[in-house]
Amino acid sequence: MSAKSLSDLRGGKVVNDDFTQEADVYIENGIIQQVGKELMIPGGAKVIDASGKLVLPGGIDTSVHLLIHFSFPSCSPLVSLHLPRRKHCSLLDAYEKSRALADAKACCDYALHVGVTWWGPKVHNEMETLVREHGVNSFQMYMAYKDMMMLKDSELYQVLQTCKDIGAIARVHAENGELVAESQKEALDLGISGPEGIEISRPEELESEATHRAVTIANRARCPIYLVNVSSASAGDMIAAAKMQGKVVHAETTVAHAVLNGSQYYHQDWAHAAAHVIAPPLRIDPDTPAYLMGLLGNDTLSVVASEHRPFGTKQRALGKDDFTKIPHGVAGVQDRMSVIWERGVVTGKMDENRFVAVTSSNAAKIYNLYPRKGRIIPGADADVVVWDPDATRTISVSTQVQGGDFNLYEGMRCHGVPLVTISRGRLVCENGVFMCAEGSGKFYPQRTFPDFLYKKMVQREKVCLNIGVVFLSKGFTGNSLVSGKDTNAPLRCTVSS
Amino acid sequence: MSAKSLSDLRGGKVVNDDFTQEADVYIENGIIQQVGKELMIPGGAKVIDASGKLVLPGGIDTSVHLLIHFSFPSCSPLVSLHLPRRKHCSLLDAYEKSRALADAKACCDYALHVGVTWWGPKVHNEMETLVREHGVNSFQMYMAYKDMMMLKDSELYQVLQTCKDIGAIARVHAENGELVAESQKEALDLGISGPEGIEISRPEELESEATHRAVTIANRARCPIYLVNVSSASAGDMIAAAKMQGKVVHAETTVAHAVLNGSQYYHQDWAHAAAHVIAPPLRIDPDTPAYLMGLLGNDTLSVVASEHRPFGTKQRALGKDDFTKIPHGVAGVQDRMSVIWERGVVTGKMDENRFVAVTSSNAAKIYNLYPRKGRIIPGADADVVVWDPDATRTISVSTQVQGGDFNLYEGMRCHGVPLVTISRGRLVCENGVFMCAEGSGKFYPQRTFPDFLYKKMVQREKVCLNIGVVFLSKGFTGNSLVSGKDTNAPLRCTVSS
Amino acid sequence: MSAKSLSDLRGGKVVNDDFTQEADVYIENGIIQQVGKELMIPGGAKVIDASGKLVLPGGIDTSVHLLIHFSFPSCSPLVSLHLPRRKHCSLLDAYEKSRALADAKACCDYALHVGVTWWGPKVHNEMETLVREHGVNSFQMYMAYKDMMMLKDSELYQVLQTCKDIGAIARVHAENGELVAESQKEALDLGISGPEGIEISRPEELESEATHRAVTIANRARCPIYLVNVSSASAGDMIAAAKMQGKVVHAETTVAHAVLNGSQYYHQDWAHAAAHVIAPPLRIDPDTPAYLMGLLGNDTLSVVASEHRPFGTKQRALGKDDFTKIPHGVAGVQDRMSVIWERGVVTGKMDENRFVAVTSSNAAKIYNLYPRKGRIIPGADADVVVWDPDATRTISVSTQVQGGDFNLYEGMRCHGVPLVTISRGRLVCENGVFMCAEGSGKFYPQRTFPDFLYKKMVQREKVCLNIGVVFLSKGFTGNSLVSGKDTNAPLRCTVSS
Amino acid sequence: MSAKSLSDLRGGKVVNDDFTQEADVYIENGIIQQVGKELMIPGGAKVIDASGKLVLPGGIDTSVHLLIHFSFPSCSPLVSLHLPRRKHCSLLDAYEKSRALADAKACCDYALHVGVTWWGPKVHNEMETLVREHGVNSFQMYMAYKDMMMLKDSELYQVLQTCKDIGAIARVHAENGELVAESQKEALDLGISGPEGIEISRPEELESEATHRAVTIANRARCPIYLVNVSSASAGDMIAAAKMQGKVVHAETTVAHAVLNGSQYYHQDWAHAAAHVIAPPLRIDPDTPAYLMGLLGNDTLSVVASEHRPFGTKQRALGKDDFTKIPHGVAGVQDRMSVIWERGVVTGKMDENRFVAVTSSNAAKIYNLYPRKGRIIPGADADVVVWDPDATRTISVSTQVQGGDFNLYEGMRCHGVPLVTISRGRLVCENGVFMCAEGSGKFYPQRTFPDFLYKKMVQREKVCLNIGVVFLSKGFTGNSLVSGKDTNAPLRCTVSS
Repeated sequence: MSAKSLSDLRGGKVVNDDFTQEADVYIENGIIQQVGKELMIPGGAKVIDASGKLVLPGGIDTSVHLLIHFSFPSCSPLVSLHLPRRKHCSLLDAYEKSRALADAKACCDYALHVGVTWWGPKVHNEMETLVREHGVNSFQMYMAYKDMMMLKDSELYQVLQTCKDIGAIARVHAENGELVAESQKEALDLGISGPEGIEISRPEELESEATHRAVTIANRARCPIYLVNVSSASAGDMIAAAKMQGKVVHAETTVAHAVLNGSQYYHQDWAHAAAHVIAPPLRIDPDTPAYLMGLLGNDTLSVVASEHRPFGTKQRALGKDDFTKIPHGVAGVQDRMSVIWERGVVTGKMDENRFVAVTSSNAAKIYNLYPRKGRIIPGADADVVVWDPDATRTISVSTQVQGGDFNLYEGMRCHGVPLVTISRGRLVCENGVFMCAEGSGKFYPQRTFPDFLYKKMVQREKVCLNIGVVFLSKGFTGNSLVSGKDTNAPLRCTVSS
Repeated sequence: MSAKSLSDLRGGKVVNDDFTQEADVYIENGIIQQVGKELMIPGGAKVIDASGKLVLPGGIDTSVHLLIHFSFPSCSPLVSLHLPRRKHCSLLDAYEKSRALADAKACCDYALHVGVTWWGPKVHNEMETLVREHGVNSFQMYMAYKDMMMLKDSELYQVLQTCKDIGAIARVHAENGELVAESQKEALDLGISGPEGIEISRPEELESEATHRAVTIANRARCPIYLVNVSSASAGDMIAAAKMQGKVVHAETTVAHAVLNGSQYYHQDWAHAAAHVIAPPLRIDPDTPAYLMGLLGNDTLSVVASEHRPFGTKQRALGKDDFTKIPHGVAGVQDRMSVIWERGVVTGKMDENRFVAVTSSNAAKIYNLYPRKGRIIPGADADVVVWDPDATRTISVSTQVQGGDFNLYEGMRCHGVPLVTISRGRLVCENGVFMCAEGSGKFYPQRTFPDFLYKKMVQREKVCLNIGVVFLSKGFTGNSLVSGKDTNAPLRCTVSS
Repeated sequence: MSAKSLSDLRGGKVVNDDFTQEADVYIENGIIQQVGKELMIPGGAKVIDASGKLVLPGGIDTSVHLLIHFSFPSCSPLVSLHLPRRKHCSLLDAYEKSRALADAKACCDYALHVGVTWWGPKVHNEMETLVREHGVNSFQMYMAYKDMMMLKDSELYQVLQTCKDIGAIARVHAENGELVAESQKEALDLGISGPEGIEISRPEELESEATHRAVTIANRARCPIYLVNVSSASAGDMIAAAKMQGKVVHAETTVAHAVLNGSQYYHQDWAHAAAHVIAPPLRIDPDTPAYLMGLLGNDTLSVVASEHRPFGTKQRALGKDDFTKIPHGVAGVQDRMSVIWERGVVTGKMDENRFVAVTSSNAAKIYNLYPRKGRIIPGADADVVVWDPDATRTISVSTQVQGGDFNLYEGMRCHGVPLVTISRGRLVCENGVFMCAEGSGKFYPQRTFPDFLYKKMVQREKVCLNIGVVFLSKGFTGNSLVSGKDTNAPLRCTVSS
Repeated sequence: MSAKSLSDLRGGKVVNDDFTQEADVYIENGIIQQVGKELMIPGGAKVIDASGKLVLPGGIDTSVHLLIHFSFPSCSPLVSLHLPRRKHCSLLDAYEKSRALADAKACCDYALHVGVTWWGPKVHNEMETLVREHGVNSFQMYMAYKDMMMLKDSELYQVLQTCKDIGAIARVHAENGELVAESQKEALDLGISGPEGIEISRPEELESEATHRAVTIANRARCPIYLVNVSSASAGDMIAAAKMQGKVVHAETTVAHAVLNGSQYYHQDWAHAAAHVIAPPLRIDPDTPAYLMGLLGNDTLSVVASEHRPFGTKQRALGKDDFTKIPHGVAGVQDRMSVIWERGVVTGKMDENRFVAVTSSNAAKIYNLYPRKGRIIPGADADVVVWDPDATRTISVSTQVQGGDFNLYEGMRCHGVPLVTISRGRLVCENGVFMCAEGSGKFYPQRTFPDFLYKKMVQREKVCLNIGVVFLSKGFTGNSLVSGKDTNAPLRCTVSS
């Protein structure tokens, strides 16, 4: 089946993030052409029987680190990947290298986040260039990884101001890197060298502290913020509080954080424990995963990503004698949707529409792809999954194609099985068989100023400049119009947001 | 233009609750047939120029009390109205009378909420009958109005259990009626007889108390709950907290509460003060309206209604010497959308998509009308407003058609003007001229078990029965699977939610 | 040793709630005469060696139900007991009967709480009489026990207004009795008849709901409130929130709630499970006891009582086939201090001074006995415990004298052993040997308007009347002076609190 | 009256922080000898009539910067002062210079806080030396004042660990210095150079951010923390939340913050506006002062200081063209108690006992002076104020002796007038006449490890090391004993707190 071929999904229930309807879906030229009942379909279309099944928008995985290890994504039709950079390197160079590698390998459409790990006029300029000329619309910043990728507060503030000016999405990894570094030293001094060190040296409070700080800095910069890898109840609560204050804050967690807890790091098998190393770490509190899943259900968290980095045991063994050297990141792009279905939908924490929101639509909205991605409507890209909500499968490393030699969810029996995955009209996966050629995926240039993040912000700035609103620090919801002195108000507004 | 006639809205931006697109809209037979660019339109369609304008789903006003005074709704294409009942009367009789009156008068499609103001087997049976045979899917209960419509906690619990069993929407007015009655007596004893008595005798804390209690009772009954007339910051915070716990709670406020404060009750002109009497009252805290508007923006509140009851000064004068006798309810169905646009969108508290959500789509989702109502897509009812976001108009009683002799927003200059309003394909308002015949609106029977409220709840119940989930009282998000003793778990689950 | 005898405690550390000092304590005539070093002691004093030990104010147990079963209190020098009353009975009659019984039996000084379980002018008058003529200064009201002791909200409001007028302490048991009754019916209908029914039918949310309501009603009545038997994290959070708002709210929990959890109700031995029946029940959440102990440590909770009602298994067997008939209340007066020391002080949740506060001084302050009780200073009653913080003992029913045939803390090894207990100068317990004659304890008449509860409240009322403060419902901390209209302000203040 | 002279305060009501009693107070040799009625007083004592008056412990002002400008303290009997240091200077040198200056000038007993404004082994050693050999027990650290006194997070962590090891009190000024510096630049770039710049460039959210961070870092270091100059509602809420979690956190605000708001910075008279410059600034939200006073009332804040730095207009004029150069600090040591009485006690936010707590006893407890200071009991230092709660006086710069040419409370009519002030037995102020010789005050060496801060912390550490408690990051109240693996638990405990 080529991109030009026709296909007709019959008899299923089409699930978007706002409602579910019984409808057929007709695809041609990689585009969804019709959605409805009793469609007029041209002859020759491949008919796919979706009776009794759900037809979902293809998942969008917003945090995948493919380039590092060249492994294959599975059935997620769109993959974004990101590029952490060392200090003082050119962002453009990094982008170009990533493009070259990815274009050769990608079997799905992809986009790139670019890491901003230092600051200076050159970085500012390259951010502008990437946005204007290269289809990048998101950057990732780190408050952790001291002496490596960590930005100081004033640097983060400058980067966020730049993001706001160019309409980019600011992804922030929030942990207090200064204190993590102290704790790492202490742990090593005490002889703690195993994977449990990740859990000991990066406690929850250092994440919630940095989350609060990130939200504050973004508010000062009047920039929307998108927190990544939210891993703890207290960080989630910080995000909920910010939303209550009217701040434009969104956040993603990972499948691993929403399903597993930190007792894994105390597993007697080093390889098992090390396979779970991710930052922030899985939390020792056994209630945390269910809490995070609940936050996905109640819209405190918007997106669940895989944070896919399928290091093998050998690669992790770099940290055999020093947990700080174990590379961070877990495998999971392949099982993301099934695991979330099992633990989110089957338990009643979210319905099928919310499932579509957190696995696809919200990412599309945030990254300005919507409704071309993330929604099944005429005109959208034909990224579609036929989903059997009643079938079950048992996850196993023996059947994975995502790379890596370990599966975090080994033995988990999941309801929710993808039967057919279509990416821009091409059948890329059917009944577990992956049929996609390297290089068939395309770079997907992205547009700036997504409405979902920026429309309110831009209006607030406009109001601020024209009328003189005082955005008191108690939060936007508490602000009020101030007549004030004509001369002062606009200035105060500009400065104090 | 008849319902069968064709019309073509050209050049506008179609605004749904999830995104905005430049598209034409073609209507035929009261249904939206096409949405897109370069549509193939049959000849003879009336062309409406929407260039530079927004095309919005028709507003849905979920709280309008038309029957009391037979006044006309304005340009909101769908109007629901509700029927408070005295104790021991038949719900069915009341429904029939309302239908008779409304069918003769309504110029928009309408639906009916039915009040449940007492409890007994007969009420239970009539609720079932209304749902199964008469197209009712929502009931309204009162925790205030002691010795009149107030239900005791155990009665409310029984009604909510019934709602859950029949899949109805449970609307609850939350104020502590026992304490309100005490405060009313005290105020009258102190010689306070004017409209300020409403503000004095119904303080905010009695609303937040009852809100918390209502949410608790609904959780015990495992019934979704929909709070009406949310009027205070503290009640809003209660609702936000419940949502954070994963409870299925939704809420509406009114335009008056989101825009005006309680200083109105101290106006020296009795008629002015009395025109603002509504329960719960407008709040004396001047920050409250902006806070409520913020809650509409951040999805703590889902819907803004008019709570339209356009009593004239003469009717209100029943309470000239005793504020407890002033009839409750304010005028406002006509200006609802403009006022919310001015104070919500222009200030940056919500964007145009969120505006559509709170004035239309959310109501449609909650009352199970979506996407036939509340969304501009092919196949939906042709309820459409052409909206000029840049034009301004000044609100005045002299130009109102909504009934009553007072306008709460007199003199307010609003951006956001409805140019054309179409209801099921019929042009009902153009440039402020209302052109709809009495009786042209139809009763719109409603379906039960709206997915938006019930899908999660039903799944939770299923999980509970089959697997034995313990829903701890700390909230659903904190629950966890319990293997437990086979015999106990299901029972506990059934009982303890 | 008679009350007139002299005694001299040498070499210990005297622990009050604000500091610890090395000092001797000299007692004569039942009164502490001197506290300090190198005291001038008359000859003939009995010397008690307290070297290396702590000298604590005698514990005050504020919730003991002795009369029901005539059992003996142990080493707590002051015991209050309370009197639940059925509706329509005279409070005075009940008081007289209790006095007659207690005077004959009590071996410690005691005072009486009187239950107010119905409402009417007679109750109002009897409350006044009890306070003015009979030394009662506290009343207990129930929001649970429907159709028995439960008051409606308006009744509770009236009682609280009366308490405020006469300066009494208002003790409130907060559970939603209406919903408890519903849940009890449902549980019995499902065949749940065992002690686990108490846990199933009285979930945490019904306590936190009622706690919030009680605080609200007390605020409306402008009456200080004292919540009893606080059993859950969410109820504790409600109390903390009220205190943050400046409300005069205090609360006590019980030893059982601060140490044990609700898994006890699922014990296979009926007698074991039934021995833990108390209302509200012990909570199923295993984190709750530590949380409550933390609230005692951080001053959210002020007092820990025993709620001592040592029913034997035979008495509890009344509820063998119906958990609603198992009498409520647990044994515990004897081990109260040791258990709290072990779980509170040894764990670092409170220091020794805070231990004195929650076991003695705070009760004395609240019930207007301070500093005559609750503090070791010259002039105070000689109620003293010599405490060995390092010794350990293992709790066992075999060594208890408190009544009952079961000990909740069986087998618990506690640091913190009372070596000597002195009550008004008399040695009542030494090395575990109880040496007190029935009837040697005296009724201790109590004074109204304790400063600890009322000084702020009285001042607020004064300010309100004279100046016209508006106490906005958002809480006292948010209030502000309002110049307002002269005529309105005082009235509003009077009415709206 | 010399320190050796006798004096007898008759007929007053002695107010301590826990209760009020009618009692005479007899003083000899600078020590309170007797407190009670019908005292046996030696002949020759000066009799001071305190009938109808209150007798309070002398105020303790914990934040006064005398040395900078050599001005006189007023009637506060004990004054602490602090010493901000530039980077890389010796702490010991600074201490010695301060001692020399203060010993010559002080007319009250005083102690010294020492600023820690950089970090290194030398600082660590000097901290130890100051504590062990020089009677210093408190240090002050800054999270603001970038490139001057600001410490990085890792440095603050090291300092706090040192404080914990040596048992010192860690005073922390919490504002995000990185972001303040950015905002200052922006404001100046926009042409904002006046005193309003302080309010614009140091918004509330930068204080609450840093407060949260400080509490987190202290928790990691397992060090009690004492926040200074708490100026905003949101920072206060952070502190309350930390206390709820069982953390050992205390805080002080200043009189100015608890009484005045930031509109002062917009005063048209530059000198008026500049006289209010303090960091963090007074807040623009008019509700903030009452909120902070409420936090003093409800024990969220423990101490109210003057932060006395009476710069004259000429000194402030250094910042005439650049608000960042206006020296920080306000005058106020003299009127501290009257202003707090008027706004705290008269309004009903605190009673007279709480007034004593926040102006005296709590400071004494925290700084390990209690009960020798902060309490009127036999054996305590004779620091006493005779206070007339009913008299009024009007504050004016014309009658001030505290230094400076401006009074923040000019024209405020205060109830609560100090009639007589006695410092260590010497009469230092009577009826407003100040009668104290320079140099008559003595340095008051302080002891480490105050029980009030450290007893719980030390016990927690002990438990942690011996038994293996896991202090989960969700806060101490949520922790639980973990049996765990013997090898892991103690290590984890040591590292992860």
